[in-house]
Amino acid sequence: MQSFGVALHTDKYQINMMYAHWVNGTHNQKVVFEAFFRKLPFGNGYAVSAGLERIVSYIKNLRFEESDLKYLSEQEENYDPKFLEELRQLRFKGSLYSVKEGTVVFPNEPLIRVEGRVMEAQLVETALLNYMNYQTLIATKASRIKNVAGNDVLMEFGTRRAQEADAALWGTRAAYLAGFDATSNMLAGKMFGIPTKGTHAHSWVQSFESEEEAFERFAAALPGQVTLLVDTYDTLKSGVPNAIKVGKRLEKQGKKLTAVRLDSGDLTYLSCKTREMLDKAGMTDVQIVASNDLDEHTIMNLKVQGARVNSWGVGTQLITAADQPTLGGVYKLVAREGADGEYQPTIKISGNPEKVTTPGIKDMYRLIDPETGKAIADYMCFPHETTVEKGAPLHLFHPSHTYLSKHLENYQAKSLLVPVFVDGELIYELPTLQEIRNYHREQLKLFWPEYLRMLNPEHYRLHISEEMWETKTKLMKAYLKK
Amino acid sequence: MQSFGVALHTDKYQINMMYAHWVNGTHNQKVVFEAFFRKLPFGNGYAVSAGLERIVSYIKNLRFEESDLKYLSEQEENYDPKFLEELRQLRFKGSLYSVKEGTVVFPNEPLIRVEGRVMEAQLVETALLNYMNYQTLIATKASRIKNVAGNDVLMEFGTRRAQEADAALWGTRAAYLAGFDATSNMLAGKMFGIPTKGTHAHSWVQSFESEEEAFERFAAALPGQVTLLVDTYDTLKSGVPNAIKVGKRLEKQGKKLTAVRLDSGDLTYLSCKTREMLDKAGMTDVQIVASNDLDEHTIMNLKVQGARVNSWGVGTQLITAADQPTLGGVYKLVAREGADGEYQPTIKISGNPEKVTTPGIKDMYRLIDPETGKAIADYMCFPHETTVEKGAPLHLFHPSHTYLSKHLENYQAKSLLVPVFVDGELIYELPTLQEIRNYHREQLKLFWPEYLRMLNPEHYRLHISEEMWETKTKLMKAYLKK
Repeated sequence: MQSFGVALHTDKYQINMMYAHWVNGTHNQKVVFEAFFRKLPFGNGYAVSAGLERIVSYIKNLRFEESDLKYLSEQEENYDPKFLEELRQLRFKGSLYSVKEGTVVFPNEPLIRVEGRVMEAQLVETALLNYMNYQTLIATKASRIKNVAGNDVLMEFGTRRAQEADAALWGTRAAYLAGFDATSNMLAGKMFGIPTKGTHAHSWVQSFESEEEAFERFAAALPGQVTLLVDTYDTLKSGVPNAIKVGKRLEKQGKKLTAVRLDSGDLTYLSCKTREMLDKAGMTDVQIVASNDLDEHTIMNLKVQGARVNSWGVGTQLITAADQPTLGGVYKLVAREGADGEYQPTIKISGNPEKVTTPGIKDMYRLIDPETGKAIADYMCFPHETTVEKGAPLHLFHPSHTYLSKHLENYQAKSLLVPVFVDGELIYELPTLQEIRNYHREQLKLFWPEYLRMLNPEHYRLHISEEMWETKTKLMKAYLKK
Repeated sequence: MQSFGVALHTDKYQINMMYAHWVNGTHNQKVVFEAFFRKLPFGNGYAVSAGLERIVSYIKNLRFEESDLKYLSEQEENYDPKFLEELRQLRFKGSLYSVKEGTVVFPNEPLIRVEGRVMEAQLVETALLNYMNYQTLIATKASRIKNVAGNDVLMEFGTRRAQEADAALWGTRAAYLAGFDATSNMLAGKMFGIPTKGTHAHSWVQSFESEEEAFERFAAALPGQVTLLVDTYDTLKSGVPNAIKVGKRLEKQGKKLTAVRLDSGDLTYLSCKTREMLDKAGMTDVQIVASNDLDEHTIMNLKVQGARVNSWGVGTQLITAADQPTLGGVYKLVAREGADGEYQPTIKISGNPEKVTTPGIKDMYRLIDPETGKAIADYMCFPHETTVEKGAPLHLFHPSHTYLSKHLENYQAKSLLVPVFVDGELIYELPTLQEIRNYHREQLKLFWPEYLRMLNPEHYRLHISEEMWETKTKLMKAYLKK
């Protein structure tokens, strides 16, 4: 919430590598990095890309303030003052490609590609991952919850449990773009235009001599949207009867009770009983809001058990992605400028086979079946392999077990990476949050339900071109020979 | 990282309750709230209070900006313009008491007490909990890790996996105050004076034709602190031998290799072999740094297995508190001004017995055995019960099973809540981060090791005075009669 320069939102090793490159004279070498994640969170079948708007703002504002340079000059590394002068001049002059926010994405797909001088491409790693990892994680969690909640209203209620202020704000944005309908977070409302909702707390009820009086006063003050929290003392014996009494009086004034909120206890039992009591009182259109440590699992269970809830308030479990609080996205060097000025693909070998990187700059396509309109698989190839855009026949094969293969003739290829910055210039027009939200909804329609289900989803394939596969094999062999 | 007003870092229901109080004419009523948590995280035996400095800054800067008021004027609630004028004038004029940062704290203890007009006391709830919950959570996690690591060096490496920018910054601060020694986060270094550390990434090695060249160049650029990452290709066959070669050359120049870093594979096996190779090369004082998804459990296991690691880099698991990413602290009304202008204790009843609040304003003491210097138990009583400060005999009893009791005569009572703001004025002199870190270390010495151990710690007691217990019983009975 405070105003800091963004340049030091980075790890020291980035600065040290920049410095070592500068000392070595290699700081202007052109390199290409790609950001991706290796494993889907929550056992989900897909993730939802988010964070780009935040990244764009970061890149635009990237510069070292005088106080940053002063701080750096005092470090034990004893950086050369000429290096600090280089930092003073530094602006992001590279290029950045990204999938659009709201895109359904999969492991090992480049969500962001950065091309630039090693100085700038290295510096931005930490912040890019910090933003991408968190927002993509929360958007994915929210999309899962939305899949379970169907047309019920979903409200984000997590600010007090979020991991500090930024998480509350940007997590709310990620939840909204992936299908949530509203938030309690006022700053997110102001900054992003997300609808805000709020009723009252137990403390409101405690502030009056009786619950009935508390309800009465609240309804009088906010007659437009009267949602009453009914579990301060006893939901069925006190809260709901008092809410009905107040609702009856409102009806006589030509107003109405909007909803009651349940925040503890057995939500299935309480919501069914509450529905019964409201209906019996003729208040069939008064809604029931439920909250209390909800996530996609509890909501699904409550729905299966027949809970009569219209609107769900989801807090902690969403805003912290409690069952897996990190995406684990990484940022890897895939190419560097050779002596001839051309990009050479690079590889990182690891004893862990799944950690071996796929070398080279990648374009990424979603292959669509023109007859069903559904996605068949995703496909990565080098930028010069342009025939895929024209629909040339493809040989798709399993990246480890290559004998598993198929031939594809009839498809449309949609390119997934869009240019955002080109040579330091922002050329991408940022969509509105509402547009991103709609786009995400459209994205989901591209996939068969098998890929989207919450438990044991079908594994969606990512293929690489034969040329890319051969390059990877060649580089691995070359390194193993050394 | 951006500059926003802080007033809207809140939930809408706070604004709605403020408004309803204002409409009702009760907005100037004096109330008292206490913030506490109900359950210790990670199965730990204690928590480490943190977040106060951030909270002080929030309270000092608390005001509605014109843009905030404009935003509020457009809400569906249709707030009266006179209410918005009231908000324009609003500054925090109440009082805030808190335990000091670094204090060892336990469930159901008030970490913060806010006294003020309902308008202001209600507004600050969300931000206070957001700050307190996250920093206390991370400080507790860090303190656990420190207990296991002993005198090994601990480095915070989590920025890229943190839940957005604020979490990286404030989480690092919390980790440092609870015993971490350094961080990779440059902004935390600049803002809080935390020592920063950083070496190089795999991408540095990939940027050169050979690993040896990469090491050579890095050491040449940063001769003061040469730590080399040795797992880009093959730790024992390539990385360590190349690091030794470069180290030997450094020795000839009167310089030295500081450390090697292991970031993958079997850290026990690799660290033992690496130690062997370094020692054989006469480099007995070259340190070994390990990282890769570490936490207190993996570090303890590695140490038990005999891993030869001097310094641990801890990232994701710490900065997200991955095994329990929220503290779940709450903020409850404990007293409100009655018609006579005196505070009346309030209670929140719940079907969940552990959620029933303890009524009234509380002072909190740590009872120390003067002979051992160790803590006996914590004790809460009403502010007028001042005899505890003078060491009057105490009757300590179990809050649910009151027959379990003991008589205490010989003790010293240390008050734990300090006044921070009194009638809107900041009177607390914030200690430096280093002072907080030292204070935390002293705090731990107050406790027998049984309370501090990582697994199945002894349960430290919190007692309440007989008068407080009677008040609680009386209020519960009164509500149940209604």
